[in-house]
Amino acid sequence: MTTEFKVSNPDYARVVRESFAKQGLMATLGARIVALEPGSCVIEMPHAPGVSQQQGFFHGGAIGAIAEAATACAAYSLMPARAELLTVEYKLNLLRAAMPPTLRAEGRVLHAGKTLTACRADIHHWGANGLEPCALLQSTLMRVETVSRR
Amino acid sequence: MTTEFKVSNPDYARVVRESFAKQGLMATLGARIVALEPGSCVIEMPHAPGVSQQQGFFHGGAIGAIAEAATACAAYSLMPARAELLTVEYKLNLLRAAMPPTLRAEGRVLHAGKTLTACRADIHHWGANGLEPCALLQSTLMRVETVSRR
Amino acid sequence: MTTEFKVSNPDYARVVRESFAKQGLMATLGARIVALEPGSCVIEMPHAPGVSQQQGFFHGGAIGAIAEAATACAAYSLMPARAELLTVEYKLNLLRAAMPPTLRAEGRVLHAGKTLTACRADIHHWGANGLEPCALLQSTLMRVETVSRR
Amino acid sequence: MTTEFKVSNPDYARVVRESFAKQGLMATLGARIVALEPGSCVIEMPHAPGVSQQQGFFHGGAIGAIAEAATACAAYSLMPARAELLTVEYKLNLLRAAMPPTLRAEGRVLHAGKTLTACRADIHHWGANGLEPCALLQSTLMRVETVSRR
Repeated sequence: MTTEFKVSNPDYARVVRESFAKQGLMATLGARIVALEPGSCVIEMPHAPGVSQQQGFFHGGAIGAIAEAATACAAYSLMPARAELLTVEYKLNLLRAAMPPTLRAEGRVLHAGKTLTACRADIHHWGANGLEPCALLQSTLMRVETVSRR
Repeated sequence: MTTEFKVSNPDYARVVRESFAKQGLMATLGARIVALEPGSCVIEMPHAPGVSQQQGFFHGGAIGAIAEAATACAAYSLMPARAELLTVEYKLNLLRAAMPPTLRAEGRVLHAGKTLTACRADIHHWGANGLEPCALLQSTLMRVETVSRR
Repeated sequence: MTTEFKVSNPDYARVVRESFAKQGLMATLGARIVALEPGSCVIEMPHAPGVSQQQGFFHGGAIGAIAEAATACAAYSLMPARAELLTVEYKLNLLRAAMPPTLRAEGRVLHAGKTLTACRADIHHWGANGLEPCALLQSTLMRVETVSRR
Repeated sequence: MTTEFKVSNPDYARVVRESFAKQGLMATLGARIVALEPGSCVIEMPHAPGVSQQQGFFHGGAIGAIAEAATACAAYSLMPARAELLTVEYKLNLLRAAMPPTLRAEGRVLHAGKTLTACRADIHHWGANGLEPCALLQSTLMRVETVSRR
């Protein structure tokens, strides 16, 4: 189910990275964009006590946050210059305990409609046998023309 | 769809609060338990730049994290003394921009099966007209007898 | 999390019932509307071999179909006269085997935005102790001004 | 995110097809298995008034039903001889109107744990440009040792 997407804004990479940099939560989680292309984005997050659950693994809430962000950046990369994007909903399945040292979420657009964009993310950690899937996300984002700011 | 739940562990409040205190992500987000009863839990999170998205509202990832945690604590409150609980999946719908100063997630158990527990959370902020719904969560948790620890 | 909704179309009941009557799948499943108010709708489906899974219980696919329809009718009841409504996504949690003789899905609107409406449905069967919850649904619908018809 | 799965029951194809044949809802919808391998299953459903929504497109409830069934068959293909499988939850995103003449749901296992199996399905119709994605599903199934039957 691969598709090639047309870029509406040639300057998309700068716009997406600027938006990401303004998301305080991403800095809090230590998350960063490690790859960005039209319709896809990879975010990584290093393990730390501050993103953990009670047994020391990555917390499901942190996993959902970076996976959702990976799909939001993937969707945003296809938007025209002045559009804004809001997340409508996301759904995360946790497959196994997500282990140190690094979590990697690959988000990609599956369908970019006029108003709504549907995405998926695959989340991996580095297990005994290399990159191992540990979570799956599916999300919907909505394009909005103007979001009032302060 | 209300149900009254029987407590398996009379010491549940201590166990749930200890587990919550070990979740590094909750401290990172500034989240705290403000109410806890058998089968229900309320978590609040104050607004801060570190839990925000690009327009300054609460980030969807932070909203999902505390809402999922509220359902996990609600589910955990019904577990017997030595059981562990893992989140299987959660699904968040964002209804509107989630505004400062405080987000409140009320998690509750809808069905506690032998292996799986199904929960919902309602998430509110304080809007112009008082407490206003801004997100909805539905989640599944699985009881596991032994999770290996460090 | 109750809200009172304003009706945009005083003739909503006729419009919703006509739309329901045009949904061939609902007749196939033997589903019918048993209650309809602004922002809420109850659909019931009698048990039959044709809506069953391999052990003879109600099939999860049939449960999802009537629960989604209950939320769609609830959302549609709040729409102005010429609006159309499309389902964007739905999520079903199955709590236990859904037993004969009748399944009952209560759909209600939780938030009616300008473009998107967020809903939940509670699904019950008649168990040994009366009405018993057996599934939970959460859904999103989108208002569209014109859907081309044949 | 591809994985190769080991078959526990060499007779899996017969077992899966027998279970499918016992699901009355699948016959009602006119659904049939068109491909089956360890960890994956393709189900097709021809268009008919009885599986339609109010504009004559495939009904979202029918789409969810066959997509969920495709993942259930995919998961069941990996089970040992006497295991039973129950669907825990599924989540469907509808990308566009699903058009005649045929809907095709490809279900596959993403992770087969001891108790839970996580799956995805991609749903296509035949559009102007060939096979076109029209829906996405993510689901969880639970293995149970004994389900009492009539």
